[in-house]
Amino acid sequence: MELQQEISQLAAELGAILADKGIWITTAESCTGGGISYALTDTARSSRYIDRCFVTYSNEAKQALLGVSATTLANFGAVSEQTVIEMAQGAALAANAQLAISVSGIAGPGGGSTDKPVGTVWFAITLDDKTQSLKRIFNGSRSEVRVQAIVFALKKLIEIIKN
Amino acid sequence: MELQQEISQLAAELGAILADKGIWITTAESCTGGGISYALTDTARSSRYIDRCFVTYSNEAKQALLGVSATTLANFGAVSEQTVIEMAQGAALAANAQLAISVSGIAGPGGGSTDKPVGTVWFAITLDDKTQSLKRIFNGSRSEVRVQAIVFALKKLIEIIKN
Repeated sequence: MELQQEISQLAAELGAILADKGIWITTAESCTGGGISYALTDTARSSRYIDRCFVTYSNEAKQALLGVSATTLANFGAVSEQTVIEMAQGAALAANAQLAISVSGIAGPGGGSTDKPVGTVWFAITLDDKTQSLKRIFNGSRSEVRVQAIVFALKKLIEIIKN
Repeated sequence: MELQQEISQLAAELGAILADKGIWITTAESCTGGGISYALTDTARSSRYIDRCFVTYSNEAKQALLGVSATTLANFGAVSEQTVIEMAQGAALAANAQLAISVSGIAGPGGGSTDKPVGTVWFAITLDDKTQSLKRIFNGSRSEVRVQAIVFALKKLIEIIKN
């Protein structure tokens, strides 16, 4: 359970920076299923920087709540750079937040392919009008992949917000 | 971390019932911040019964995403029976799900009052056209209140879906 403690600490660190800078954050989560928003709201007074978050598990949800285009999903799939970019930008817009993170991956145990093995996770982070995307391939069980994705997301958010 | 294991087991048990019955679930979380959806999606193939979930932290989010009325929020507050009922019914509608759970509470450490002490959590569960609401007052830290709320929510969902 060491990673759980790390998640709490990272979320608290990120929250303190957001509160200090007056930056609002939102999340658009697929494979992590709300784990990032759960971590971020574990800190007291997180209502100073979180208004709403999205768990968009299906393609339809990604389209309806975040405005991801059907063409993008059809051409590149839900677990793709193009999709997470549209998810993050759509979430920022829908939540009127300066900062947004999106996550879409294959947590397993099923669903993997040669191109996109189990553990493949795409992330995008939008800050103001700039979006960056990242891919990681994590090892381990479904739960382990998800926890590592949450840790990675929080670390990246801290890194980006500090610069 | 025993409660974390209990959450995993309860989520898996609930997921198996939902998959078996072909029932779709959604969540509308305020104080638990996505912890229920995170638990529910930890089970493989949870995409058979989860399409989207909502983390509605602010009053504005509860109105915009779930259709909670401004009058209800003004008259009864975000942590109230009336609000969680509208949250659950609104989530079921927005996600086109048969089953929805909503949670709104005061996880602390601040925000408590004589009427609504820290640890007060309201829940509502909508199944088809029936909604029931419940209030619990949990003890402990912010994290402990949230974890207990998640456990309670999952147990209630299992109880209701089994009947």
